[in-house]
Amino acid sequence: MATKLTATVSSIVIFIISFGLSIFLYSKTPDAFPWIAPWVIQLVRASAMLIALFLLFERLFKMELHTKIILGMLLGAAAGILFKNNIMELKPVGTAFIRLIQMIVVPLVFASLLAGTASLGDIGKMKRIGTKTLLYYLASTAFAITVGLVLANIFHPGSGMSPEVQAKLMENYQGVAGQKLSAAQQTETSPVQTFLNIIPQNPFEALTGASMLQIIFFSIVTGIALTLIPKEKAQPVIAFFDGLFEAMIKIVVQVIKIAPYGVFALIADAVGNFGLEILASLLKYTLVTTAGLLLVIFLYPFVQSIFSGLNPG
Amino acid sequence: MATKLTATVSSIVIFIISFGLSIFLYSKTPDAFPWIAPWVIQLVRASAMLIALFLLFERLFKMELHTKIILGMLLGAAAGILFKNNIMELKPVGTAFIRLIQMIVVPLVFASLLAGTASLGDIGKMKRIGTKTLLYYLASTAFAITVGLVLANIFHPGSGMSPEVQAKLMENYQGVAGQKLSAAQQTETSPVQTFLNIIPQNPFEALTGASMLQIIFFSIVTGIALTLIPKEKAQPVIAFFDGLFEAMIKIVVQVIKIAPYGVFALIADAVGNFGLEILASLLKYTLVTTAGLLLVIFLYPFVQSIFSGLNPG
Amino acid sequence: MATKLTATVSSIVIFIISFGLSIFLYSKTPDAFPWIAPWVIQLVRASAMLIALFLLFERLFKMELHTKIILGMLLGAAAGILFKNNIMELKPVGTAFIRLIQMIVVPLVFASLLAGTASLGDIGKMKRIGTKTLLYYLASTAFAITVGLVLANIFHPGSGMSPEVQAKLMENYQGVAGQKLSAAQQTETSPVQTFLNIIPQNPFEALTGASMLQIIFFSIVTGIALTLIPKEKAQPVIAFFDGLFEAMIKIVVQVIKIAPYGVFALIADAVGNFGLEILASLLKYTLVTTAGLLLVIFLYPFVQSIFSGLNPG
Repeated sequence: MATKLTATVSSIVIFIISFGLSIFLYSKTPDAFPWIAPWVIQLVRASAMLIALFLLFERLFKMELHTKIILGMLLGAAAGILFKNNIMELKPVGTAFIRLIQMIVVPLVFASLLAGTASLGDIGKMKRIGTKTLLYYLASTAFAITVGLVLANIFHPGSGMSPEVQAKLMENYQGVAGQKLSAAQQTETSPVQTFLNIIPQNPFEALTGASMLQIIFFSIVTGIALTLIPKEKAQPVIAFFDGLFEAMIKIVVQVIKIAPYGVFALIADAVGNFGLEILASLLKYTLVTTAGLLLVIFLYPFVQSIFSGLNPG
Repeated sequence: MATKLTATVSSIVIFIISFGLSIFLYSKTPDAFPWIAPWVIQLVRASAMLIALFLLFERLFKMELHTKIILGMLLGAAAGILFKNNIMELKPVGTAFIRLIQMIVVPLVFASLLAGTASLGDIGKMKRIGTKTLLYYLASTAFAITVGLVLANIFHPGSGMSPEVQAKLMENYQGVAGQKLSAAQQTETSPVQTFLNIIPQNPFEALTGASMLQIIFFSIVTGIALTLIPKEKAQPVIAFFDGLFEAMIKIVVQVIKIAPYGVFALIADAVGNFGLEILASLLKYTLVTTAGLLLVIFLYPFVQSIFSGLNPG
Repeated sequence: MATKLTATVSSIVIFIISFGLSIFLYSKTPDAFPWIAPWVIQLVRASAMLIALFLLFERLFKMELHTKIILGMLLGAAAGILFKNNIMELKPVGTAFIRLIQMIVVPLVFASLLAGTASLGDIGKMKRIGTKTLLYYLASTAFAITVGLVLANIFHPGSGMSPEVQAKLMENYQGVAGQKLSAAQQTETSPVQTFLNIIPQNPFEALTGASMLQIIFFSIVTGIALTLIPKEKAQPVIAFFDGLFEAMIKIVVQVIKIAPYGVFALIADAVGNFGLEILASLLKYTLVTTAGLLLVIFLYPFVQSIFSGLNPG
């Protein structure tokens, strides 16, 4: 009891110190103290900021993960407004978070689809479910796309940004966008070719190139094939990918715990770089998205009634 | 009984309708009906053609797979002659078939050689068999190459094509050939280097680049190594690749069922594009190949008698 | 008894013949016998040399592996001095040895780290060991680097080469070095980015590109995740990579047996190409390295005493 109290008190004390220190140091430029190397200042203030966040999120209050993430966004925006370019040095925390998520995408999708399809078992049943699901999926997708397009054309999320911010965004991302554009132009493909390209010519190339549609196709086809061969032959393959899938999920669960810090760093960097305006655009985008989601949820029963006989389940 | 008859009758009716429709539409250009978009025409006539083929192959007659494939070739040639460029829009069916086959080559070769070598078990026995097999293989290969070269130099398959078709073929494939040529020229390697290149510097790179010789080398070496480690350690690896191999074989078995349609589309495209001449060349090539095969089969006993003590088994 | 004697006698006879033949042929240029194609001469003398080496290492004397390797170096140097450019044709034997070692690096590292981490089991225990080990590792690394830098700056290994040899080395390797340099310049990364790059964006890309740090990161993270999921789910994955690891180790054990021949060929090629001078440089380098190792070993107890409480174990 006493030790717990001591722990809480020391948490509060360390929080106040690290929070104050980071606020103080971030309000100066790194070369404000000529007798200390700038990178030392940057390291100290970044560490202090992250320690303060850690104590706030994990020690001082009991919060749900989503509360932490939203708080991380708000605090990140505040830090971006207050410290401008200075706070951009925290971006690597956000980048690390994003890279960790990216890392597990390919093995997660591959292992989950392969093991998932393979353990569905009865192919005949799957066909029946599959056809119904596909039709239902297509109908609801068409409906959702309609709602999305209508809302996007009424509210124009992304507009209302000042020309300066637009120019700055252009400058920052035109390299990336230009590359993608030129790559897309070079491989100008017909719609039929686009469909054919879903069939990988080499699944290992698809895995290495992270060609998601090809990976999805190959893993589902292999998963189905595994349901068609003798169980004792298929079992080791399924067990392997099932275990890999569980491991990847476990990594996701762990990585998602650092999401509040990653989101804090990313928002702070974006606001520090582009100002609050970019958040306003993001907010508008978020509101329209939410409105769309609500519309889809409320109108779905009507769509469902049209496909009443097609409900899977 | 009655339902079966009804099914057959309806199959015949649908066949006649779809066959007639596709013939009618393919004899026109897609823009023959100005009030319908060309892509609708193309979609309808392609679907009708494939439905007619499906009913012919699977419902109206009972045929072996190879009968279907040969029939697919003949019908494809006929369609190419009749509908010229129009029929080329069916090519994606052939491309899909080829891509599906390509997709399984690398995992099939890798898994089968690894699991196969590993389950041979006794390395001592393998060495003895291996040496005999290798000698026998080399001798018979040398013999087969001799037969092949002699026949090729007597009959010149590939000749007898008109200069126009040759020019058209050149035009169509010189991009591909040129690329391969320049790639080959850039990496001009000595014969010794070619052998050294069979050893992959990174097996994952070999898998991604579909370097077949490197994949074969690595899978055999790993397979042999698996026979040399404790059985309970090797078993999970062997079981995994054995299951993967079975799954790949199952995919081949399924994909080969669409071979008649793929062959129909590919031959129709080739004949529609280059005319019957290309088939004449192919036929000559096929006949010479068959003659060579027969020669090899009939002359093998004599070669075998020379290596009488070397027969494996 | 008698057969063993016969075997030894015939070994000696074949050794003398092949040794004499290779010496005789290597002292001439390949075109010394105008009535025989040069490549026949080269094949015969290379085979004779390798047969002589094989009998010397494996039949005539009983030697430990390291004795064979050192003898291979010495004989290689002698062959390089005697036969100059002629002996360079043996280089492929060395290249094959190096490629075989390279082949297993990526799967060995990946499988061993993944299976190793996963079978450590208790994550709590691992954390405790991990922190201690990391601190100890960092301290001893810092110490070792200091010793290395001091010695390198006192003795300048690599110096003392004549300008001609330096020019020749430059010429031989400037292509490779230039490529690496320009690649490094293009991707000029900040230290923080270098750390972030350890997190792979796609583990399959890391495996294909042999990005060792990324492979190490992913395999350790996946290994840890496997300790956190139910044992029966993790077991098939661990067993698979454990078996693969054992197989890779078995390949290493086999490949290392041809090390004496590979080393012979590589040293003969280097000396034949650059003269003994390059060996003198290598020797100086080796002596300084050895001195450094001895220093580190003798001074470690003092470093250890500083971190006395941190010793793992």
